[in-house]
Amino acid sequence: MEKMLRINMGADGGPKASSIPVGEYSGLAGRALTSALVSKEVPPLCHPLGAENKLVISPGMLSGSLAANSGRLSVGCKSPLTGGIKESNAGGMASQTLARLGYAAIVIEGKPSGDDLYTIFINKDGVNINVDNSLKGLGNYALVEKLKQQYSEKACYISIGPVGEMKLASASIACTDMECRPTRHAGRGGTGAVMGSKNVKAIILDDTGMGMRKPKDPDKFKEANKRWVDGLKKHPVTGEGLAAYGTNVLTNILNEAGGYPTHNFMWGRFENHTKISGETQAALETERGGNPTHGCHRGCVMRCSGIYMDKYGQYLTKQPEYETVWAHGGNCGIDDLDTIAMLDRLDDDYGIDTIEMGATIGVAMEAGLAKFGDGAAAINFVNQVGKGTDMGRILGSGAAVTGKVFGVERVPVVKGQSMPAYDPRAVHGIGVTYATSPMGADHTAGYAVGSNILGIGGKTDPLSPEGQIELSRNLQIATAAVDSTGMCLFIAFAVLDQPETFQALIDMINAFYGFNLTADDVAELGKSVLRNERAFNAAAGFTSAHDRLPGFFTRDALPPHNVKFKVTDAELDQVFNF
Amino acid sequence: MEKMLRINMGADGGPKASSIPVGEYSGLAGRALTSALVSKEVPPLCHPLGAENKLVISPGMLSGSLAANSGRLSVGCKSPLTGGIKESNAGGMASQTLARLGYAAIVIEGKPSGDDLYTIFINKDGVNINVDNSLKGLGNYALVEKLKQQYSEKACYISIGPVGEMKLASASIACTDMECRPTRHAGRGGTGAVMGSKNVKAIILDDTGMGMRKPKDPDKFKEANKRWVDGLKKHPVTGEGLAAYGTNVLTNILNEAGGYPTHNFMWGRFENHTKISGETQAALETERGGNPTHGCHRGCVMRCSGIYMDKYGQYLTKQPEYETVWAHGGNCGIDDLDTIAMLDRLDDDYGIDTIEMGATIGVAMEAGLAKFGDGAAAINFVNQVGKGTDMGRILGSGAAVTGKVFGVERVPVVKGQSMPAYDPRAVHGIGVTYATSPMGADHTAGYAVGSNILGIGGKTDPLSPEGQIELSRNLQIATAAVDSTGMCLFIAFAVLDQPETFQALIDMINAFYGFNLTADDVAELGKSVLRNERAFNAAAGFTSAHDRLPGFFTRDALPPHNVKFKVTDAELDQVFNF
Repeated sequence: MEKMLRINMGADGGPKASSIPVGEYSGLAGRALTSALVSKEVPPLCHPLGAENKLVISPGMLSGSLAANSGRLSVGCKSPLTGGIKESNAGGMASQTLARLGYAAIVIEGKPSGDDLYTIFINKDGVNINVDNSLKGLGNYALVEKLKQQYSEKACYISIGPVGEMKLASASIACTDMECRPTRHAGRGGTGAVMGSKNVKAIILDDTGMGMRKPKDPDKFKEANKRWVDGLKKHPVTGEGLAAYGTNVLTNILNEAGGYPTHNFMWGRFENHTKISGETQAALETERGGNPTHGCHRGCVMRCSGIYMDKYGQYLTKQPEYETVWAHGGNCGIDDLDTIAMLDRLDDDYGIDTIEMGATIGVAMEAGLAKFGDGAAAINFVNQVGKGTDMGRILGSGAAVTGKVFGVERVPVVKGQSMPAYDPRAVHGIGVTYATSPMGADHTAGYAVGSNILGIGGKTDPLSPEGQIELSRNLQIATAAVDSTGMCLFIAFAVLDQPETFQALIDMINAFYGFNLTADDVAELGKSVLRNERAFNAAAGFTSAHDRLPGFFTRDALPPHNVKFKVTDAELDQVFNF
Repeated sequence: MEKMLRINMGADGGPKASSIPVGEYSGLAGRALTSALVSKEVPPLCHPLGAENKLVISPGMLSGSLAANSGRLSVGCKSPLTGGIKESNAGGMASQTLARLGYAAIVIEGKPSGDDLYTIFINKDGVNINVDNSLKGLGNYALVEKLKQQYSEKACYISIGPVGEMKLASASIACTDMECRPTRHAGRGGTGAVMGSKNVKAIILDDTGMGMRKPKDPDKFKEANKRWVDGLKKHPVTGEGLAAYGTNVLTNILNEAGGYPTHNFMWGRFENHTKISGETQAALETERGGNPTHGCHRGCVMRCSGIYMDKYGQYLTKQPEYETVWAHGGNCGIDDLDTIAMLDRLDDDYGIDTIEMGATIGVAMEAGLAKFGDGAAAINFVNQVGKGTDMGRILGSGAAVTGKVFGVERVPVVKGQSMPAYDPRAVHGIGVTYATSPMGADHTAGYAVGSNILGIGGKTDPLSPEGQIELSRNLQIATAAVDSTGMCLFIAFAVLDQPETFQALIDMINAFYGFNLTADDVAELGKSVLRNERAFNAAAGFTSAHDRLPGFFTRDALPPHNVKFKVTDAELDQVFNF
């Protein structure tokens, strides 16, 4: 991966691709590369939908190799949702495929002057950029079906739905999975709107003729990878828990902890939680001939994904993640898995972040536009977003805009981005991450739920501010590094509990690149990523005032524990003291 | 004015009014008082529509006295439009009336829990707060008609229309004029939404039985006021220009200067400008039996206001101001005065800031929702805002939200507030004020147009960055002081050109209060106001990154002079170096 592909969509005479050496970004990949490039090359005050913004798509350091679970893709840009820097992370086949094609990144720059819609085809022979206006308005599913006919079933597709074309701030970028379905999304922060602003509908990656990436020291790499896989398999979460029930295993756990945000963050428990739990979902999937144990990309040994069939036994969507089930479920008072799965399907098809969409519907319900629990209304809302009605454009712009337009005070966002499925009052550590992450409210930026609720890497009291700053700081640093390796974040469960598994990861990287990294070097990598991101945000106008939760979290107590968020502002300002 | 009225709308048992001494705010009035109180008492990170925000309504230092042109009212709060501090200023009868009732301010705090709508009646005997849900949804005109029956034709009314009730960020607060019509608005920054969030529909001020406020030294005061009036009358702008054509005299002047923003800031000249100029407007008003020369409050000697009749000779609206004629006219490509007057009437009736509304329609037209020049579409847009349709709620949330929802890049806002009728590329001084004012883009915060275009207080080259920082700095300081006196800002034309008229103003204040202020003290007052405002904004998360114009002003040249905005960021950061 010593080259990157620069595509200038605004070049005179039409879009132009150049394959160039990675140069100053050598050695960087994934989030480390996207954040370095965006913070260096994108003017912090530029319009996120303008020619100056860049969309950077980068596989991780180990993507495209035999390393297990190394298939995560980083997508970076200035976010239309937050106005700050964004790295949004997706599974699926894109990361492995792009890495095998030898690209450390695709950088989409500039902006075409007309409204032609483009596809970008990349294979071992080079790049073809074509106008294809017949794709306008297509949902991701129909789009991929059409492109599969034109290209290959074995290719991988990175695409936007109509919501990305409309440049709405909740638009996602879809990546196809092992079955070549557009189910794995770089969801957060409106990356799909940036791709839409550059009039790129789809990127087709075909790695035919390219082999696995080769390690510098194949024997050492193979041996480390074996320890790595063993480590993942022996940990109860990565080895069994995720495989059995997927991420939705968390519904019952968070509900029990009183940290399951219900009815737009009114309460911490949802009375009908068992109807939408991972256990119920997995049983239903099995009963209908789906599959609750399945990877989102080749090389995954955790297999937390799954396949959700409708009541007629036909494929409906991939197994919705915990955060999706929460966003459209308990957060909106909806307790029907088929409704939630349909919402997940629609989100994927239109190209919408499921978390932002669910949180937005919660705000719309609070505004009185529909009753909590009304699944048909929720489906109608999402369809309106997909169609781009006036209401749809409001909702598709996210929870912050929806709250503003309808005069709602209880809007669960930080830096304009909606909070996921953990209430900060009952899970203090995640509240610190929500408040301070350069990404806006993002559970994946420093998943303190692991320690607060599951006791991973040591137990901290979720209801107390004690120790949460240090916990979130360390997790944010570690996560920034993990997001640069191409590794799925869930490896953290094993890595945090098993030092030998962490060492196996470092050994794999060293064997692959011929490096001599230590654990401290990995931490330093994470810190440097965060420093780049914080510097971009500071130049974009972010201050400590933006590292805060909305006032209702410190003012209104959350049942059943009747707790408020008790981490002080002064403590929050210590997170990045490193 | 040694007392203020604190009204807690969220008190247990219902809203409660307390008349208390001004205490620490003694000696402050107008903007000096609203900004001091908001910066001291409103948490900078609170939700602008929440219980913690406060709406502060304050007459100026000389309001309620015999001083000519002292009838301006300041309305302060945290702005739902900008997220920063706001002082919005209105003419009409409210300031004089409130001052005669002896109140330095009305402070509306807290928030009722239900959705009852309230009126607040204030006279010499005290305060009555009543529920009146029959007023829900009424436009300002119908509302005032209804209240006049119930109260008095001689009372003064401060009210919100349906847009304030909907808490949309472009909502204004209306004040009645000499004819008891709701035509004078604290328009900018969404003050009407804050009043709406506190469920206050109208404040009725009846000063029956109260006399003029008495100066400490009546003879000195009378003598200074005579010099003051003479000074205003002898200056060509305040003595003749404004009276003859109103503020709309600027249409031809700005168009000639190439600084008249046309078609959403695409060009600097509007080919049909003469059809909507002040000269044409005044002739039409006279022809139809209206009146182009009229004051907005008693005691005005400049009389820049007027009365606009429809083609049947019936009252339609007050003479639309230059910025309104521009916002709905050239900015939207509309060249018909009757259409513009109807838009002005609708804005006043629904309770919308005319500048924000016109700029928003320009953005909507750029988004392709209607063609530039389509007056019927513009009227339809405003009606939708008034009715609160989905489209109306988008547009009523202002240009920044509308741009976001429709993916428009050319959005002429600073700190979320729309720019008025002067393009910063052709009028550099006003660009500095737009960029740096704590209020967001606001021509009244430091009216550099006077020097750049009219040569008031010395001429500066409008197309050059030279001298603009100092000009804007001095004007912003002076304006903050003037906004605290209750004086109409237009006195600045005379005061800047005639030192003896400035001295007359200081002498009036000194005679009235028994002070010994010098010109330096007045400047210090202005500086202290700005310091309070900047401190609030800093704590609310504003940095120098927010003191910038949108990128297209430095990137795209403006015809006909083909100029870009050339003041550097480093220079902008010098404005508040005092």
